[in-house]
Amino acid sequence: MDKRAILHIPGSQYAFAYTGRELRIRLRTARGDMKRVTLIYAVKYDWLKERKTAVMQKSFSDELFDYYTARVDAPDPRIGYIFYLEDGKEAYYYSEEGLTADYDHEKSYYNFFQYPYINAADVHHEVPWCESAVFYQIFVDRFCMGDREKDRGYINKAWGEIPDPKSFFGGDLKGIREKLGYLEKLGVTGLYLTPVFTSPSNHKYDTVDYFRVDAMFGTDEDLKALVREAHGRGIRVILDAVFNHCSMECAQFQDVLEKGRASRYYDWFLIRGDFPDPEHCNYECFAACSYMPKWNTSNEEVQNFLIGVALHWMRETGIDGWRLDVADEVSHDFWRKFRKAVKGEDPEAVLIGESWHDAAPWLKGDEFDGIMNYSFTKACIDFFAKGTRTAESFAGRLNELLMRNTDQVNAMMLNLLDSHDTERFLTLANGDEDSLILALAVLFFFPGMPCICYGTEIGMEGEYEPDSRRTFDWDETHWNKKINAAVRFLIKLKGRIGGEARLYAEGKLFLLERGKLTLAVNAEREPAVLLRDGKEHFIAARSYIIIEREEGV
Amino acid sequence: MDKRAILHIPGSQYAFAYTGRELRIRLRTARGDMKRVTLIYAVKYDWLKERKTAVMQKSFSDELFDYYTARVDAPDPRIGYIFYLEDGKEAYYYSEEGLTADYDHEKSYYNFFQYPYINAADVHHEVPWCESAVFYQIFVDRFCMGDREKDRGYINKAWGEIPDPKSFFGGDLKGIREKLGYLEKLGVTGLYLTPVFTSPSNHKYDTVDYFRVDAMFGTDEDLKALVREAHGRGIRVILDAVFNHCSMECAQFQDVLEKGRASRYYDWFLIRGDFPDPEHCNYECFAACSYMPKWNTSNEEVQNFLIGVALHWMRETGIDGWRLDVADEVSHDFWRKFRKAVKGEDPEAVLIGESWHDAAPWLKGDEFDGIMNYSFTKACIDFFAKGTRTAESFAGRLNELLMRNTDQVNAMMLNLLDSHDTERFLTLANGDEDSLILALAVLFFFPGMPCICYGTEIGMEGEYEPDSRRTFDWDETHWNKKINAAVRFLIKLKGRIGGEARLYAEGKLFLLERGKLTLAVNAEREPAVLLRDGKEHFIAARSYIIIEREEGV
Repeated sequence: MDKRAILHIPGSQYAFAYTGRELRIRLRTARGDMKRVTLIYAVKYDWLKERKTAVMQKSFSDELFDYYTARVDAPDPRIGYIFYLEDGKEAYYYSEEGLTADYDHEKSYYNFFQYPYINAADVHHEVPWCESAVFYQIFVDRFCMGDREKDRGYINKAWGEIPDPKSFFGGDLKGIREKLGYLEKLGVTGLYLTPVFTSPSNHKYDTVDYFRVDAMFGTDEDLKALVREAHGRGIRVILDAVFNHCSMECAQFQDVLEKGRASRYYDWFLIRGDFPDPEHCNYECFAACSYMPKWNTSNEEVQNFLIGVALHWMRETGIDGWRLDVADEVSHDFWRKFRKAVKGEDPEAVLIGESWHDAAPWLKGDEFDGIMNYSFTKACIDFFAKGTRTAESFAGRLNELLMRNTDQVNAMMLNLLDSHDTERFLTLANGDEDSLILALAVLFFFPGMPCICYGTEIGMEGEYEPDSRRTFDWDETHWNKKINAAVRFLIKLKGRIGGEARLYAEGKLFLLERGKLTLAVNAEREPAVLLRDGKEHFIAARSYIIIEREEGV
Repeated sequence: MDKRAILHIPGSQYAFAYTGRELRIRLRTARGDMKRVTLIYAVKYDWLKERKTAVMQKSFSDELFDYYTARVDAPDPRIGYIFYLEDGKEAYYYSEEGLTADYDHEKSYYNFFQYPYINAADVHHEVPWCESAVFYQIFVDRFCMGDREKDRGYINKAWGEIPDPKSFFGGDLKGIREKLGYLEKLGVTGLYLTPVFTSPSNHKYDTVDYFRVDAMFGTDEDLKALVREAHGRGIRVILDAVFNHCSMECAQFQDVLEKGRASRYYDWFLIRGDFPDPEHCNYECFAACSYMPKWNTSNEEVQNFLIGVALHWMRETGIDGWRLDVADEVSHDFWRKFRKAVKGEDPEAVLIGESWHDAAPWLKGDEFDGIMNYSFTKACIDFFAKGTRTAESFAGRLNELLMRNTDQVNAMMLNLLDSHDTERFLTLANGDEDSLILALAVLFFFPGMPCICYGTEIGMEGEYEPDSRRTFDWDETHWNKKINAAVRFLIKLKGRIGGEARLYAEGKLFLLERGKLTLAVNAEREPAVLLRDGKEHFIAARSYIIIEREEGV
């Protein structure tokens, strides 16, 4: 038995409450090592009286490991458990004292694993509408210009030109409203808008006034109308909460620039010295951008100010949640307070953090619901666009990512192939539309919420920003019809994709099962045959098929 | 290379902020597998510009694994890092994408490990006085009766008789005050008292009135005087916060018993049905004790009530912290709020949770500072009292326990050999005083706060409760002189024990280094010789020595 491969971490994604009374338990072992893995569990105070057992299922595998899972209808909120591992030659109990040939039940209170109490306040609940959501990300300046009467003085590029970092094209909220019919027809059920509040830049990630929609994009009324009309079409809206930092033009920072330590806002920022000095940046900021000073979110006044912003817009507009910018650089302490306030206002609001990495510490149910799943993005790039992963290693990597977090987090991940912060996927694939289409199929079958970056559905291209932030081309004759048809098909299918996921490779094929549906992807340049239920399924080169299991099979 | 043994978990005890600018990084590998482990790190936004490296130290080992550590003076609060692993034959980079022969620095923002920002609000700070603290646990009814004028009607056993579950002996707060001189002379610097608030039982873990000291134990004034006088002798006091449950006699539960759902306290408990029914226990309670109904700590009113209790006693008496009863069954949500309130009142108050298991989820710096370290207890029992572990496996187990939590948590663990909830250690060792003395030596050398259960220093014995809760025998002629001398010696030495710990076995000897001091324990029945700095050190059977490294060696 490969003892060093065995892993279980109590109180983590390896042991979590799914509802008030269901525990989900995972165990990691070396790949292919075990014949049988059994969960032994009991109400912790009744360990000696009555123990139950459940054979665990091998549900996920990556290059090195198998992951076994069990679902336990907890007879009581207080559960102790151990594992019994059999590899055909050896057998061990696995407890908090490691692997032992025998297990002393009399002293189990010292060393069983435990989920000591399923407290209602700690359970992470899935936001119900997320399961079927299809998101669409809009970079507002570049989607559609709808306001024909506004002051266009700020616009410095013609629609369709290639953007530079300082380009303004004139896209706005009225433009998005005009296109709600288009989005509804496309099948989108959620919009994620990059920031819309007052800011001098085209991206508006440097906020000057959090309480006012930027005049370039329209008015507060336009935002309200957009959300109202989107809701009327069954489309939810989430906004971008830029709470890590602000613009140096914002009133609070200006006050500190003027008064230094004497300003009542001095402690709202993290400044070394009596006065902030933008030239030498003697204060914390985003990246190395001195024009974006970082909020001191350990300060309670700042916490209350930013939470006030969030609640204001939820109340004013009825938005359905927030995407949280640079979320992993903001304090846990702030996000916990933030979550309570937001969920108190609307328990069905969703919170999506921006983190490009393993974000497990933020995804325990007390901070974010999910993140922008850039690890998923990277895996898709490697397999479909760059060809640096095999089907086997792609399946392994996706399984590994699923095992990073709880099932409810996986269901609320915002999965994406690209965004305003990456190259366009199609461009990374050197314009190969099949690469994109295969990746899109996986995007829609993978647990979580698919999010399409505006224009992906028409085959928009672009290198790293600013190039990836081109204007949407509304001339349908320019659209990539094959990609467009694929996106429309997958969105339509999304409502039927559900249930537990199983991901694996068969030869060079990548397979992703959800309930009755199996997605089989052939990323190779040769056709392939998949054998299923005694039937041969032909899959063209660089193509996929979807097989529906028949009833009773 | 044993790839499956390699483990690093970002944002956990494997990567934590020790102070505002120091990161401590750990990596687990198979035991004996690596030639060199290098940490590669950078300010995350400067990854391509400037990376630093640090060779990691093999600091801890258990049966299966080595644990490498590094301390990083973070040049910036935002750190990305990866590892470079060399076993002499193979070499791999280790990032969030696992082990790879090459590493694509250009795409590192997708997959380096990261500590995205050291936010002040999230840093777990050590309570400064803990480093040198020596705790002494007192079960109040059994330590000393000081009040000679009180109503003794409740006392049903004579001092010195063997207790049964319902025995009352008359120990009280005045008694402890009388013995402060004894405790000061012993060298104790902290008292942990089992509950003192109004309750019908001898243990008082079923509280009726949280705002009043139980009349059996004295008055609120007695408690204030005790804390005041203890402080005057340099002794801190922590009380037992029984916030998981109360007594069914408490006013709130009585109101619900009377009015059912109509009671304003109905939601303060977790009741199935319109009325609580103690006979059939249709409500959540502690263990299976229907007389101890569980508080609904997800309810904000309950949270505020219990926090009010804690603040009341901190303000009234100036106590130095709380031991938290059945802490792991209470919601995380409650403890986070509780910690903020307590630390807001007194940043140097310490919070010690009762958890008998791996309590990492409660020890992230936002809930408890440490726990009662029963896993340490069990390891000592196995090695010294039962002989079921070798020196090698004992060292391994203790190293494993140190790797469960951050260094600051390890420094604030309440380490113990026994308590009111276990058998007396000496009894588990069949009365063998050497077993106890060797275990005590380890207790005092191990990182964290040693806690002696009242009477250990005189050789008190006792089986599982109620027998372990015997009365203190104040007749010095009955004391075990050898044990008493050992305790006094170790307490005196405690102030000189500090610095990083290294634990390992050499042959059958167990060694524990702290700074210049090395504790060498010979638990065998044969004498042994330890070679150090070219000198032979003789260690008698069932004995220990302490070696001080000379300057310049």
